[in-house]
Amino acid sequence: MSLVIVGSVAYDGLQTPAGKVDRALGGAATYIALASSYFVPSSIVAVVGDDFDQQDYNFLASRNIGLEGLERVPGKTFFWAGVYSDDMNDRTTLTTELNVFADFNPKLPAAYRARPYLMLGNIQPALQRSVRAQMNAPRLAGGDTMNFWINDFRAELLETLKDWDFLLINDSEARLLSGESNLKRAAAAIRALGPRILVIKRGEFGATLFHDGGSFSVPGYLLDSLKDPTGAGDCFAGGFIGYLASRGVSLDAAAPAAELARAVVYGSVMGSFCCEAFGVDRFRTLTRDEIDARFAEFQQFTAF
Amino acid sequence: MSLVIVGSVAYDGLQTPAGKVDRALGGAATYIALASSYFVPSSIVAVVGDDFDQQDYNFLASRNIGLEGLERVPGKTFFWAGVYSDDMNDRTTLTTELNVFADFNPKLPAAYRARPYLMLGNIQPALQRSVRAQMNAPRLAGGDTMNFWINDFRAELLETLKDWDFLLINDSEARLLSGESNLKRAAAAIRALGPRILVIKRGEFGATLFHDGGSFSVPGYLLDSLKDPTGAGDCFAGGFIGYLASRGVSLDAAAPAAELARAVVYGSVMGSFCCEAFGVDRFRTLTRDEIDARFAEFQQFTAF
Repeated sequence: MSLVIVGSVAYDGLQTPAGKVDRALGGAATYIALASSYFVPSSIVAVVGDDFDQQDYNFLASRNIGLEGLERVPGKTFFWAGVYSDDMNDRTTLTTELNVFADFNPKLPAAYRARPYLMLGNIQPALQRSVRAQMNAPRLAGGDTMNFWINDFRAELLETLKDWDFLLINDSEARLLSGESNLKRAAAAIRALGPRILVIKRGEFGATLFHDGGSFSVPGYLLDSLKDPTGAGDCFAGGFIGYLASRGVSLDAAAPAAELARAVVYGSVMGSFCCEAFGVDRFRTLTRDEIDARFAEFQQFTAF
Repeated sequence: MSLVIVGSVAYDGLQTPAGKVDRALGGAATYIALASSYFVPSSIVAVVGDDFDQQDYNFLASRNIGLEGLERVPGKTFFWAGVYSDDMNDRTTLTTELNVFADFNPKLPAAYRARPYLMLGNIQPALQRSVRAQMNAPRLAGGDTMNFWINDFRAELLETLKDWDFLLINDSEARLLSGESNLKRAAAAIRALGPRILVIKRGEFGATLFHDGGSFSVPGYLLDSLKDPTGAGDCFAGGFIGYLASRGVSLDAAAPAAELARAVVYGSVMGSFCCEAFGVDRFRTLTRDEIDARFAEFQQFTAF
C-alpha cells in the first residue's frame, strides 16, 4: 500500500553539543519519506530550488522514494538553521529562509490521488487542507502541525483537522491546541476536533496514542549517543504511518488497536535512529534488519 | 518477608492548583510505609514530637504498620510547607522546620535488625549509613537521596551508597550524581558506586530500571485528575520494595529481572494513586483490588 507525503524538502544548518553542520539535506517530507520508505513505497510532493543538489536527489531516489511530485523551480531551496541547548530538549532558530517554499502550492500528480495513505507534514493548514481535498478516498489521511499554526492560524487549522484520521503532535502542542493541561482531557478534546487517532510525542520520554479503543504508551529509547534530534518527530511520523500502510490498516478494520500500538513503536524506533547521526545521515546506512532488531529491543525493555 | 523503613514522619502544608491543606500527615517514611504495607508487614523507624496527633498514629497502626520504632520526644514534629507550579512539575519550599527531626539519630529496635528488607528514606547519608550498619544481613537494602545531599554531602553519600543494593532517584538527581547527561551512561556510573539496582524516576513520564540483566522502562500513568504529587516518589519506593519483599527477591536469585520489572510497575501504580488526593488521603480508602486492577491497566496500555 503506497503513501503520499506532502511537506518541506530543505537544507538545514545544524548545531548541537555533538557538532555542527552548515548545510545538510532536511525538511519534514524528507525525513518522513526516508523513514516510511522502509515499510512502503513512498512519494514526496514538495518544492525545491535550482540549487537542489543532484546527489541529494539521487540519495532520495536510491531509497525508492517517488520524486514525480518534487517540483524544481528557479530560486533557492528552503533553508533553516538552528542551535540546540545542552540537553537538546530546546532549540533556537537562527535563520528561516522560505525561498521557493514561500509560494508552495502543492499539486498532486494525477496518479497520486487514488493512493490509500496520506501524510501531511507541518505546513500551513490551508495547504494541508487543499491537498487532502485532492485525494479521492484515502484509507488514512492525517499529519502534523506546530505551535505557530495553533496560535496564529487556529480557525484554519480547526477546519483542516475535521478531515483528518490521525494527528501527531508533541505534548506542549496538545496542551496549546486543547487548552487542557491534563493530557487525557487534552487528548479527548483534540479527538473531538476530528482525528480519531492521536499520537502525542514526548521526545526522550516516549509517546502516547489515543484512539477509539483506549490509549497506549511507549517509553523512550535510551540512546547510547544523541547526536542531533532534528527530524526525529518526522521520522516517528514516517515509521508510524509507514507501518500502518504496510499493514493496510484503516479505521474501519475490526481491531486496529494492536496495529496502532505497533505503529507507535515503529515510529519510536525510527525517531531513535534519526537522533544517532546529523541530519539524515543515519538513513544512509540503516537497514531493515536493524529496525526489526530495535523493535525487538523495545519489546524486551517494556515487557513485564 | 518484612520491611524496615527509616525516614521522616512529618506534617506538611500543601498548596497545589487543585487546593490547599494547612497541616496534613506526611514525611517520606509515612508515604513509603503506607504504600509498602499493601504488600508486606512494614515497620517505621522515625521520630515525632509531642504534638503528633493520636488520630494519625491510629491511622498508621490501622494499616498494620509497625510503630515500635516511632519515637515520640518533647517538641514539635518536623514541618514542611510548599507550593506547586501550575503544571505541578516544580515546587517551591515555603517553610522547613526540622524541630525534633534535627536530632534524629535512628536506633533500630533489636527485633528489626534481622529483618530481610531495609528502605532508607531521604535523610542525611551518615544516618542512612548508621542504620544500614545496625542491620545484620538484609536480603536487600537501599534507599533514596536528593540534590541537597548530592551537592553538599557528596563524600558522605558516596561512602553510604557503597553498601546499598538499590537506589531510587529522579533523572535530574541521576545526572547530578553521575556528572553524565546521557541517562544510560549516568546509570552505569551510578551503579559502579554500589547499588546494582538503580531506578530512575521520571515523574509523569514513568521510570527506568537498570540492573545486571539490562534495563526496563515503564511509561507514566495518565491520571484523570492530579490533586497533589507530594509523596508520589516515596509511594513509588514503597510499592517497589514492598513488592520485592513480598516475593522474597534477593540479588542472588537466579533471574530477578521479571520481578524487578514488576516491582517498578507496582511502584508506578502506588505513585499514581498517591497523586489522586491531598497528602496521604488516597490511602485511607485504597484497596489491594484497586492496586491489582491498575497493575492490569499498566499491562493493557503498554502491551504491543
